[in-house]
Amino acid sequence: MTTLDEVQAAIGPADAEAARAADERQLRLTKPVGSLGGLEALGGRLAGIAGQCPPPVPARPAVAVFAGDHGVHAAGVTPWPQEVTRQMVANIASGGAVVCVLGRQVGAEVVVVDVGVAAAYPWGPGVLDRNVARGTADLSRGPAMTRGQAVAALEVGIAVAEELVDAGHDLLVTGEMGIANTTPAAALLCALTRADATAVTGRGTGIDDELLQRKVAVVRAAASRAASSDGDPVGVLAEVGGLEHAALAGFLLAGAARRVPVVVDGVIAASAALVAAALAPAAVDHWVAGHLSEEPGAAIALDALGLPPLLDLGLRLGEGSGAVLAVPLVQAAAKVLGEVATFDAAGVTEK
Amino acid sequence: MTTLDEVQAAIGPADAEAARAADERQLRLTKPVGSLGGLEALGGRLAGIAGQCPPPVPARPAVAVFAGDHGVHAAGVTPWPQEVTRQMVANIASGGAVVCVLGRQVGAEVVVVDVGVAAAYPWGPGVLDRNVARGTADLSRGPAMTRGQAVAALEVGIAVAEELVDAGHDLLVTGEMGIANTTPAAALLCALTRADATAVTGRGTGIDDELLQRKVAVVRAAASRAASSDGDPVGVLAEVGGLEHAALAGFLLAGAARRVPVVVDGVIAASAALVAAALAPAAVDHWVAGHLSEEPGAAIALDALGLPPLLDLGLRLGEGSGAVLAVPLVQAAAKVLGEVATFDAAGVTEK
Repeated sequence: MTTLDEVQAAIGPADAEAARAADERQLRLTKPVGSLGGLEALGGRLAGIAGQCPPPVPARPAVAVFAGDHGVHAAGVTPWPQEVTRQMVANIASGGAVVCVLGRQVGAEVVVVDVGVAAAYPWGPGVLDRNVARGTADLSRGPAMTRGQAVAALEVGIAVAEELVDAGHDLLVTGEMGIANTTPAAALLCALTRADATAVTGRGTGIDDELLQRKVAVVRAAASRAASSDGDPVGVLAEVGGLEHAALAGFLLAGAARRVPVVVDGVIAASAALVAAALAPAAVDHWVAGHLSEEPGAAIALDALGLPPLLDLGLRLGEGSGAVLAVPLVQAAAKVLGEVATFDAAGVTEK
Repeated sequence: MTTLDEVQAAIGPADAEAARAADERQLRLTKPVGSLGGLEALGGRLAGIAGQCPPPVPARPAVAVFAGDHGVHAAGVTPWPQEVTRQMVANIASGGAVVCVLGRQVGAEVVVVDVGVAAAYPWGPGVLDRNVARGTADLSRGPAMTRGQAVAALEVGIAVAEELVDAGHDLLVTGEMGIANTTPAAALLCALTRADATAVTGRGTGIDDELLQRKVAVVRAAASRAASSDGDPVGVLAEVGGLEHAALAGFLLAGAARRVPVVVDGVIAASAALVAAALAPAAVDHWVAGHLSEEPGAAIALDALGLPPLLDLGLRLGEGSGAVLAVPLVQAAAKVLGEVATFDAAGVTEK
């Protein structure tokens, strides 16, 4: 098993030479300069990750859906019962959830991982049982996790990413499921970007004004507590994060270490990416933002990470749904670099 | 062959009952209400087009790339030589153009149609030869087409759409190639939306300030001439349009008549859609805007049509590229309605 330390040490920046070669190649392809906008930038990014131009076209995407529960559920931050996490894990395992349907659509394998579901449950073979704890403690009353739990969950994410890459997957996609998990995401965002709690706290999967006020207060208090861990990302994560946030951070780091692009989904994944970026700043080079979630914290997190989102469809579901939808765009960006004819080869006159 | 009159008569609005059934079904799927944002709206639209819920998932998309040349090229509105139209048709036919690469990526067949290329050329079997005229006349000096040419080109588009649908294609995608064709597109936009020439005239595939000023003047004068055809869309089209714009308008109308969704690409396709909408307002129900082009007129046209774009990647290539990139989103929207488990079926508790 690869430890967090080992993964951090293995992460390097993108290959600037390959990225530059991609930008230069774009100029010779039969299209006006810059006319593919964001797709050209993405092509350069993929070349930098792969260290070659043209970059390989990812053919075997995989989504890892990390599931966890949250002690802060008891503070009344969501109208959804906690048992829905377990029920949705089962729904994902049986192929009925949105992420499964979208995964089939783009040819992505979906694996669901119990990293922190509260209810012990006899999962069938469709769920990877990597439970670190039966949910976090209530972050409105004290630390959500011990430092040991946070590191263990990070290393679950690392292991899952490595297993997927070892099995031949060449594009990783972040997914998650956890009732109440926008609250720890907002607290992480607050603590790591210094944004105000009102700016990063959203209605999650659907809460009213009263609940929103309560959630903002919880986020503000927790984030201010986490500020004492400044400069210690694992400390911040343990104080206010979730087990799935930790696993996602590890997953993002391991993808970067293996130089496999990782598509970041919504606000949960983006908050985990902030943790991962704090642990290994060069890792950001290897990530792609799949979409801009409706959750207000998502834009703040992606901005802080410097990752422009590919889609903006007003999604706020999570599960990895927005990132899976972006998979064909990632493939297209690589394919353009590899397959579009050059002016010379096609006998097309330049302007 | 189906005439323009026959196609206009065959077009009806979307099925409101099926669209409503889709909206209701979204409420029962295992996800928070509204959490799939634009994808949910798209699902309802597809149900309305198909007249059934869930709508079928389009499995055989086809892109028609209509190619034409423009007499206004002589007025110096673009730095690209006119021969590039013919060269790019050959590049498309041999599979090297961006639209071909993106088409392969999403499993879409690409057909390229000479509806108005200036140079007579011994096209191989890869090009549909439906040439109506060897380019338009110079719209800066007089009518671009005769009324007969405009109708003939409209009917080329109708025929191509019908052939594709008859061959089993269940999703149509608009594409075009024509050096200087953003100028007639801007003139159509101006004439049909009353927008100012400066607001709709862009840099196309790349022009400097001086060229841009010339282009604006040409567009303004042509659009003001076309205003005398107010209430006669074919008259406006003939006065300032292009042969590929006309073919695209026919293609969009025939898709609507056959109740097959048509994905609209950039500013050329959107300007053609304005013509088609003027000829049969209910046709708009059957179209989907693939993306928001960087060309300034695109937003104005999509706004006027009431079509929200799916992608916004800063593209300004044309060929159908942005619309092809949106194909997986259209498929995903339909697939969600058909395959996501309901709360009941999955045993998931509602909030």
